[in-house]
Amino acid sequence: MKVMIIGCGRVGSFLANRLDEVGHQVAILDRNQQAFRRLSEKFSGERIVGNGLVEEFVRPTLQEKTDMFFAMTDKDNVNLMIAQKVKQSFHVEKVIAVVHDSILAGLYKELGVETVCPTDLVIKDLLEKIQEG
Amino acid sequence: MKVMIIGCGRVGSFLANRLDEVGHQVAILDRNQQAFRRLSEKFSGERIVGNGLVEEFVRPTLQEKTDMFFAMTDKDNVNLMIAQKVKQSFHVEKVIAVVHDSILAGLYKELGVETVCPTDLVIKDLLEKIQEG
Repeated sequence: MKVMIIGCGRVGSFLANRLDEVGHQVAILDRNQQAFRRLSEKFSGERIVGNGLVEEFVRPTLQEKTDMFFAMTDKDNVNLMIAQKVKQSFHVEKVIAVVHDSILAGLYKELGVETVCPTDLVIKDLLEKIQEG
Repeated sequence: MKVMIIGCGRVGSFLANRLDEVGHQVAILDRNQQAFRRLSEKFSGERIVGNGLVEEFVRPTLQEKTDMFFAMTDKDNVNLMIAQKVKQSFHVEKVIAVVHDSILAGLYKELGVETVCPTDLVIKDLLEKIQEG
């Protein structure tokens, strides 16, 4: 599968390493070259330094059929803007954005942008831990 | 149950509102008074403005038996320092810290500090979403 990831933070880099390791074709973009230090030495995918909101940085990858796109920066609004733009402008099967704000995440889910909300996941986990205790 | 929460961010405030709503005795601390705007109007617990690392701010609550303590600031090191100190100095049944760094979270789990790692939870959720797709 062909995969693009925006943001080489903890989550983005883990995903890039993992998907590359199991044989997918991965391109990862970050504004900061230093962020790529999180990638494994074995990482064989493409590293792109640039702004995910600027089309010239994502078009070369996305103009060919891409299976999965992940907006994984630490900024909710950036992730949602990128995800929406990619859904509108390119043919990508699966577009997922990380959104920390539960309400925003819920709203965009209704609008058809798949979201992962760390806040909701942490709260669910904590409530389970409290029940156990 | 008696509960203390450090950090009135998204997770801390949700937890405070929820536990207060179902009848627990909640004290929540934040360095920033403004953070308490996240609490529900119905919140009947205690709001403490102060630094969770400074004992005088947590002692008045913790010197009486406390059932659960949550270190929920956005800083891993602060959460771990507070959690360890509370475990050492007070009698609290359950101490849980949010730790974004997967490796740190794993290490401290081995040392007996219960941790919740948003990074691990997001990655797990993403990998499930990829399998589904």
